[in-house]
Amino acid sequence: MIDFRSDTVTTPDDRMREAARDAEVGDDVYREDPTVAELESRVAARLGTEAAIYCPTGTMANQIAGRVHTERGQEVLADRKSHVVKYELGGFADLAGLQVRMLDTDRGVPTPEQVEAGLVEEGLHRPGTGLLCLENTHNARGGLAIDPEKIAAAAEVAHENDVPVHLDGARVFNAATALDVPVAEIVDPVDTVMVSLSKGLGAPVGSMLAGSEAFIDEARRTRKLLGGGMRQAGIIAGPALCALENVESLATDHENARALADGLDEIDGFDVQPPETNIVLADVAGTGLDTAAVLERLEEQDVLATAFGPTTVRFCTHRDVSAADVEAALERIEATF
Amino acid sequence: MIDFRSDTVTTPDDRMREAARDAEVGDDVYREDPTVAELESRVAARLGTEAAIYCPTGTMANQIAGRVHTERGQEVLADRKSHVVKYELGGFADLAGLQVRMLDTDRGVPTPEQVEAGLVEEGLHRPGTGLLCLENTHNARGGLAIDPEKIAAAAEVAHENDVPVHLDGARVFNAATALDVPVAEIVDPVDTVMVSLSKGLGAPVGSMLAGSEAFIDEARRTRKLLGGGMRQAGIIAGPALCALENVESLATDHENARALADGLDEIDGFDVQPPETNIVLADVAGTGLDTAAVLERLEEQDVLATAFGPTTVRFCTHRDVSAADVEAALERIEATF
Amino acid sequence: MIDFRSDTVTTPDDRMREAARDAEVGDDVYREDPTVAELESRVAARLGTEAAIYCPTGTMANQIAGRVHTERGQEVLADRKSHVVKYELGGFADLAGLQVRMLDTDRGVPTPEQVEAGLVEEGLHRPGTGLLCLENTHNARGGLAIDPEKIAAAAEVAHENDVPVHLDGARVFNAATALDVPVAEIVDPVDTVMVSLSKGLGAPVGSMLAGSEAFIDEARRTRKLLGGGMRQAGIIAGPALCALENVESLATDHENARALADGLDEIDGFDVQPPETNIVLADVAGTGLDTAAVLERLEEQDVLATAFGPTTVRFCTHRDVSAADVEAALERIEATF
Amino acid sequence: MIDFRSDTVTTPDDRMREAARDAEVGDDVYREDPTVAELESRVAARLGTEAAIYCPTGTMANQIAGRVHTERGQEVLADRKSHVVKYELGGFADLAGLQVRMLDTDRGVPTPEQVEAGLVEEGLHRPGTGLLCLENTHNARGGLAIDPEKIAAAAEVAHENDVPVHLDGARVFNAATALDVPVAEIVDPVDTVMVSLSKGLGAPVGSMLAGSEAFIDEARRTRKLLGGGMRQAGIIAGPALCALENVESLATDHENARALADGLDEIDGFDVQPPETNIVLADVAGTGLDTAAVLERLEEQDVLATAFGPTTVRFCTHRDVSAADVEAALERIEATF
Ligand SMILES: [Ca+2]
Ligand SMILES: [Ca+2]
Ligand SMILES: [Ca+2]
Ligand SMILES: [Ca+2]
Ligand SMILES: [Ca+2]
Ligand SMILES: [Ca+2]
Repeated sequence: MIDFRSDTVTTPDDRMREAARDAEVGDDVYREDPTVAELESRVAARLGTEAAIYCPTGTMANQIAGRVHTERGQEVLADRKSHVVKYELGGFADLAGLQVRMLDTDRGVPTPEQVEAGLVEEGLHRPGTGLLCLENTHNARGGLAIDPEKIAAAAEVAHENDVPVHLDGARVFNAATALDVPVAEIVDPVDTVMVSLSKGLGAPVGSMLAGSEAFIDEARRTRKLLGGGMRQAGIIAGPALCALENVESLATDHENARALADGLDEIDGFDVQPPETNIVLADVAGTGLDTAAVLERLEEQDVLATAFGPTTVRFCTHRDVSAADVEAALERIEATF
Repeated sequence: MIDFRSDTVTTPDDRMREAARDAEVGDDVYREDPTVAELESRVAARLGTEAAIYCPTGTMANQIAGRVHTERGQEVLADRKSHVVKYELGGFADLAGLQVRMLDTDRGVPTPEQVEAGLVEEGLHRPGTGLLCLENTHNARGGLAIDPEKIAAAAEVAHENDVPVHLDGARVFNAATALDVPVAEIVDPVDTVMVSLSKGLGAPVGSMLAGSEAFIDEARRTRKLLGGGMRQAGIIAGPALCALENVESLATDHENARALADGLDEIDGFDVQPPETNIVLADVAGTGLDTAAVLERLEEQDVLATAFGPTTVRFCTHRDVSAADVEAALERIEATF
Repeated sequence: MIDFRSDTVTTPDDRMREAARDAEVGDDVYREDPTVAELESRVAARLGTEAAIYCPTGTMANQIAGRVHTERGQEVLADRKSHVVKYELGGFADLAGLQVRMLDTDRGVPTPEQVEAGLVEEGLHRPGTGLLCLENTHNARGGLAIDPEKIAAAAEVAHENDVPVHLDGARVFNAATALDVPVAEIVDPVDTVMVSLSKGLGAPVGSMLAGSEAFIDEARRTRKLLGGGMRQAGIIAGPALCALENVESLATDHENARALADGLDEIDGFDVQPPETNIVLADVAGTGLDTAAVLERLEEQDVLATAFGPTTVRFCTHRDVSAADVEAALERIEATF
Repeated sequence: MIDFRSDTVTTPDDRMREAARDAEVGDDVYREDPTVAELESRVAARLGTEAAIYCPTGTMANQIAGRVHTERGQEVLADRKSHVVKYELGGFADLAGLQVRMLDTDRGVPTPEQVEAGLVEEGLHRPGTGLLCLENTHNARGGLAIDPEKIAAAAEVAHENDVPVHLDGARVFNAATALDVPVAEIVDPVDTVMVSLSKGLGAPVGSMLAGSEAFIDEARRTRKLLGGGMRQAGIIAGPALCALENVESLATDHENARALADGLDEIDGFDVQPPETNIVLADVAGTGLDTAAVLERLEEQDVLATAFGPTTVRFCTHRDVSAADVEAALERIEATF
């Protein structure tokens, strides 16, 4: 089975497994797990923030950010196709009472004008904007790598209006790799960032939420509320530390994605744009089949991908598919279409 | 002062005041206020629903509908400029944990295709759509009167997908008047409707929420939760009953609005489209002034209107401004621009 | 029918009805209703607070106080039998995300020691106490009039711990009357107070929330969120102003309650303690009947009261039952038991 | 350092560490992690439920249960000192809008009469009871092992009233051990149960929520909402599977607790009752010191315990303290008091 469904499926390699076995641990609710502590301080250093906190998932990290930045009843500005809007079960509304003002943006990032226009001043009838939430890379728009300047420009307008900015950087290392900039440069203009370790970097479990000391203190409490205060978490933080060493392999994922996209585009009925990172969106309308039928035919060939629209299929490259896997997959797909 | 700020400013006439004085009352929490009961049954009959309930405001009626139709964590489909999104302090999110999927529509009403595309199927990552919320007339888009067919078409898609439909019909009698259809025809395809009595119809206080018996039973409880269970409410339900007799005067408001629009459009720097009902949106960009400056100059002439955008001023006609008032206002405005 | 169910059933007298008819009104959302403004300033003056706001119900006023004083996820200290706990549909939890720490108190008011013991310090696992909520008179405990000193003592502990205090004073004028102290003396130690006008004072609709200017500003916004921003509310604020003149009649209600209690206690099977205000709790266990059966038998005699426990019946005196009514009721009850 | 603070501090043994390294994994959000699947089915089998789901913490499992069993605005019946009330940041109110009706019980479990009396019938003013939440062993009351008959009796009243029952069984294996009954017998009368694997059983991370298939399906979705949908969770589920083999060692913890209690009770100023499981509450009032001072003096002797009241210290025995550690600790404590 060649599995392009998501980079979340990456499995830990031997080094990670050894790290799990050998991790020095303690009770992280008492803040005594040295492996978690090291992970948090290394991630903060890498991202250029004061502090960071380890969370079981990126969804939890995003939801914590939503609550800690805001007061109930405020608005959040976010791209309509962002993960926090589409794939987190409406948590901003459900868990934090926030109204998301959905923006339709060009590449997933609002322009300064859109931010300006989207800000709502607190008043007798209006909630006031409490947060701008960005995403980089932008998953639902095909893994687009957003320029640090664009992030900075959007954040600047928010900050001028005393609105904090959270970055859903689940794949921000992919963005940094694609744009060839230090990840801290992307993170610099925002107040907080979530980074997934369990996707392209290959950790079995976990995402980081990073920001100021004061913010992370508050986040620690909200993590407890949501049920994310794990105990001897060093067992998974150990592999996660290894995952930090895997940033360079993302470049390979991106090459594989380009090769996959090129190959798919050659196949009858597939229309594919060159990807910017590790996500390839294929328009399969030309096959005369809908997404479900295409996925079924792929699966018969032992190739897995994901439904992303009525005639759009998402392929995601990652550490567990090699260049050879990509080639093999293309042959099998070509054979059946 | 000629007051075009809103039709909410309408004051009760002598007949209403007599009705307030003479109302037979009882404790409506015990359902013993005969005047409220009569109001509720007369409104239900007029709208063609099984039942109706009297609420202190339209905002409360809309918020009750949002909660009763849904479960926490669901989505609501609504036009981005609808009242429930813009002017109710994010109540759907704050009070009911609902994520509003904001649609950008042509005339304030989504097409069947937009409803279809906006529906979210409940799943592991997605909340599921719990309500379609429409508005007629559409305030923020300039008092547009939405055709019953358009309402029906949007509602049909929702119903096919087991999603209920609520209509914010704060000014649905204006829509019925403008389109020359029975109000029940507009209401027919939706499950619940909110109707304001305190706007163009002139009641001092109150809006109705109408729907099935079972729905209104549940609404009664949610009204209590939100603090809307008033006692001897007949004192205001009496005038509200009189307001039901005022539907015909809405046609006059619409004529006055057209005269006002025509006159304003003649004035230098004002660009005004013919209104469909009692709301006139004037683009004042041509004056070289912004909205605040225009409003200030109007107020110096004892004319009041409302800011509706950086260079957009809203004028609203109603029972308390006559054709002569409109003429007088136009003269004063012309004199100063 | 002699109706002892509640003092909420009081109907407006002719003076109030005239006041409704003659009220000067305006749009109170624009803060232009002079009658509402007068009511708010007169109530604030009477209670000794900076400001006050008119609400459609006491439930709404209490719920507004709960939200404005706190942040989501905090605790509220309240007597287990207080109205906010028993009869407001769990609104503190549902609308504001507050955990109520239910206290079992002697006369409905916690001792300083109970407040001290009930306070929860904010921490990693604990929400922190955000509000102390008191009630005077205490309805569910039989209309007990709580001494100002007791209120002050409880409030002092809260304030020493930076916890604000809200008083559900739905019947605080009854307390002031019974204790023969100025109402402002009872209110003095608390931060905010709710006062009902539609109960013993006889107004058809409405309760006041009073406190500091800054608090009432915030309350105005939360009132809008909950749907309490009524328009030409002068029509009901007029009668409510008259109700402020009715404070002296509460002494009569209390006398009638004492007479009723004395008389009931003489009846076979009724065990009744002398009431402190206008609420009489009768233990009817001695009749061999349960509450429902007793109420049914009373109703056959055209006497109405309320179920308050398996063998407890509540009688409430008010402006609309006279001393003669009490006598007549006693005769009828005696005849049937 | 001899650490009696909590059984949460247990660290994974070599077998668990090997299991972490060697776990077969997959993406558990896709339900493809065989180790998690095995853990879930083995726990369900052991508890006698249809299904179970692995959660990062017991708090999350309890909060999921709270939401899935109820509708917003309902009440939960729970002992005042239960974990869900005291140590979960008011999550039932904050995350689910539930009002907790706090019961004062004898040994942490309400009698049938208390359940009956605590049930609130849904009505116009009252939320209705949506859940009875029990706890066994009962932490805050000193690790009391609640008889299955008591659980069953409370649950029976709830069920007769169509109210579901959740058991916070974080330490239910301790209860089963102490009472010498199969754990399934304790679980049998309840609808859902949470069981911690990271406490006495020694797993590094994780708790289980168990119940019917339908319930666990819904729980899976709520786990995602709260951010508990971990990916290659087999890395921690592997050690958790080993933890299931550790049930027998709980008997040793209980013996150690008894020895510790006996020894402490001999020490001047310590008053200690015989423990039922692994939790020892020491009343230190007799030392003339408060809890903080006692804990400080213990720490100087390299002994750690937990504050549990002004003069109450909690000692918790677990796999990582041996009988020899207990003896050593007693010697050191004796030496300093
Ligand atoms: Ca992974
Ligand atoms: Ca092609
Ligand atoms: Ca009006
Ligand atoms: Ca023009
Ligand atoms: Ca009344
Ligand atoms: Ca452990």
